[in-house]
Amino acid sequence: MSAEEAAAQPQQQKEEQEEEKRDAAPEPRAQPAAAAATEEEEAAASASASASYRCLVLTGHGGYDKVKLQVKKGPPAPKKGEVLVRVRACGLNFADLLARQGLYDRLPSPPVTPGMEGSGVVEALGEEVSDRKVGDKVIVLTRYGMWQELVAVPASHTFLMPEGMSFEEAASIPVNYITAYMMLFDFGNLRPHHSVLIHMAAGGVGIAATQLCKTVEDVTVFGTASATKHDVIKEGGVTHAIDYRSRDYADEVRKISPKGLDIILDPLGGSDTQKAFNLLKPMGKVITYGAANVLTGPKKNLLAMAKTWYNQFSINALSLMHSNKAVCGFHLGHLDGETELVSQVVVQLLELYAQGKIKPRVDSTYHFEEVGDAMRRMQERHNIGKVILLPEPKKEEPKKEEPKKEEKEEEPKKDEAKKEEN
Amino acid sequence: MSAEEAAAQPQQQKEEQEEEKRDAAPEPRAQPAAAAATEEEEAAASASASASYRCLVLTGHGGYDKVKLQVKKGPPAPKKGEVLVRVRACGLNFADLLARQGLYDRLPSPPVTPGMEGSGVVEALGEEVSDRKVGDKVIVLTRYGMWQELVAVPASHTFLMPEGMSFEEAASIPVNYITAYMMLFDFGNLRPHHSVLIHMAAGGVGIAATQLCKTVEDVTVFGTASATKHDVIKEGGVTHAIDYRSRDYADEVRKISPKGLDIILDPLGGSDTQKAFNLLKPMGKVITYGAANVLTGPKKNLLAMAKTWYNQFSINALSLMHSNKAVCGFHLGHLDGETELVSQVVVQLLELYAQGKIKPRVDSTYHFEEVGDAMRRMQERHNIGKVILLPEPKKEEPKKEEPKKEEKEEEPKKDEAKKEEN
Repeated sequence: MSAEEAAAQPQQQKEEQEEEKRDAAPEPRAQPAAAAATEEEEAAASASASASYRCLVLTGHGGYDKVKLQVKKGPPAPKKGEVLVRVRACGLNFADLLARQGLYDRLPSPPVTPGMEGSGVVEALGEEVSDRKVGDKVIVLTRYGMWQELVAVPASHTFLMPEGMSFEEAASIPVNYITAYMMLFDFGNLRPHHSVLIHMAAGGVGIAATQLCKTVEDVTVFGTASATKHDVIKEGGVTHAIDYRSRDYADEVRKISPKGLDIILDPLGGSDTQKAFNLLKPMGKVITYGAANVLTGPKKNLLAMAKTWYNQFSINALSLMHSNKAVCGFHLGHLDGETELVSQVVVQLLELYAQGKIKPRVDSTYHFEEVGDAMRRMQERHNIGKVILLPEPKKEEPKKEEPKKEEKEEEPKKDEAKKEEN
Repeated sequence: MSAEEAAAQPQQQKEEQEEEKRDAAPEPRAQPAAAAATEEEEAAASASASASYRCLVLTGHGGYDKVKLQVKKGPPAPKKGEVLVRVRACGLNFADLLARQGLYDRLPSPPVTPGMEGSGVVEALGEEVSDRKVGDKVIVLTRYGMWQELVAVPASHTFLMPEGMSFEEAASIPVNYITAYMMLFDFGNLRPHHSVLIHMAAGGVGIAATQLCKTVEDVTVFGTASATKHDVIKEGGVTHAIDYRSRDYADEVRKISPKGLDIILDPLGGSDTQKAFNLLKPMGKVITYGAANVLTGPKKNLLAMAKTWYNQFSINALSLMHSNKAVCGFHLGHLDGETELVSQVVVQLLELYAQGKIKPRVDSTYHFEEVGDAMRRMQERHNIGKVILLPEPKKEEPKKEEPKKEEKEEEPKKDEAKKEEN
């Protein structure tokens, strides 16, 4: 079976086949770079053909070039309980960066299409789907496989987009807002007058968490971000912005809140989890949900990994008791069996959106053929808010020289598609 | 300074002196048994003398006989911010049993008066006390020292008793109900439709937790207790009573709730914390608040201690994340600096009492001279609800033979004082 065929399979079936493949060939099977170039050309040429669709495929673990644009033939057929969605926007997440480096265990081995969230329009219904109809605009949350123009997903993993929400906003909701909501309101038990530390406050989860904190009376938000982003995060609701690059964030927090904090969201891992634990008030809660410290560049950094795991936070019952604190772990990827639980949260979020209390901030949009640039933007932490991928082909423009392609890209991509409302 | 004088000191000062003593004489200085007997006689003789008062003193670490009744001379003088309380009832807690064996680090070295909670009447005010007046009936929560007829405590550690509450009920509130409330509503984030496991459901915390669970809609309570207590705990609100002596409680829970539970209160420690963790649903929380497994008899059991500590639960950030679970530690004794936090909880509890939603269950009352029997009752888990100590002397009755004093005492003490309402 070719990679193209594999990616076109409905998810469950595909996953089973991936399992088989892994058994047969544990090494990632990266496609030669030359083949990839040919496919990209092919992709541009055949984008208008209705029987084929564009799709991003992780072809092996490594740098940005491991995610390739491919064209699949024949639309995926929705199975019983599934809907076929024409995807209009997809979210890029930190987990996708980890996955590309082979550091995310919820994604099957390459070749595989990544992508956990997106938005689009229902194009066909499988059997026994009664609560969706063709033409519905939907938000989709799935374990992987969203980075394609057409996708078949269980109807229960789709949510109707509210009036006035753009496809880009819709694709920004699931991962970041569900994560922030469950951490703050389920584990964190956020209440009036609480104080919260949000790391990477300009990132997708950071902005979602800040907005959710503001839905509760008199919550003090400490947010870390590089200094250039402080104006934006303060405008978004951060009470005290801390430049983690020039100062020790724990010292800065103590200056303002000597007793410590009620809730700390920890996406960093390693020694930062212990630091967070120490920074809690009695009855405080740290919620650890990532290991961003392992991601230091585009390729796997064994030293950073070793350091992060070596310094990994560990605690016993007695220490917890003597300090009156809580340690929680959150990982949305491991909640994929909890459809009902997650759906309840999405319902809450869409209500908050309708009330104008939350609004995703789209940092930038990139077409599928620019996925490398999109990943670089997030990897180098230039984004403020969500980085979005668009399945539709980039419109042809007069070609410009791009002399320093490997350097940092400071400016977000501006695109007409970003302005498109539903 | 004699032990009597030491116990009569206001708390803070006393504690400092205890610290000094420990430095000078690290070994507990138990009084000879003969001297204790003399003091008991003296106590009975002088109970009516207004210038002296009865008090229980832990004279060394060990069995039930280490807590002795003594008489102090001259009432303690309330310092600035303190009130003098004539104590009418005191609570006995699991921590007091641990303390007697030298296993509770929040109690200074002997000789020292234990007791963390009680109720009584304000008899005098120190300077700068404006929110209490002589004659006020109060609930008291303090770090130690409540087991005496007269006690000087900070006014901020007292709470006005609501109408209709007996002194015995009042003395049953602080430790058990604050513990249960903070575990369930602060760490546990108890919500409608949740499922909760309560170990030792017939104990003080167990009964309080069960009642608090019933204040939330459709909460399923799993409660462990020996079979003879099942009728009582079911009547009190336990949905599924489990006899932990004849069955594996985890198996029993899985039969009814295959996916596991939302909240587990763990007073056992050792390997039971891991068992609780495994029994949680995704997004579930275990709150560990004791190590009852170390208490196997009246004296320190080194083997049980070693086993409990050896099997102590320990976890790292990655395992927490992959399981989407929370581990919390609670210890009211380590919250003694958090007066405001704790006071807010007491306000909530007294409101629930006034609404008739909670009502302490007094298992039995014992006079100070019967403290050994009281501790044995709790140690051997015969109580259903709270064991209360009464400072007032036991009324003289025609003496009966008590041939088997060392055996289990199955029947609770009946006493006129139990009926007394405020």
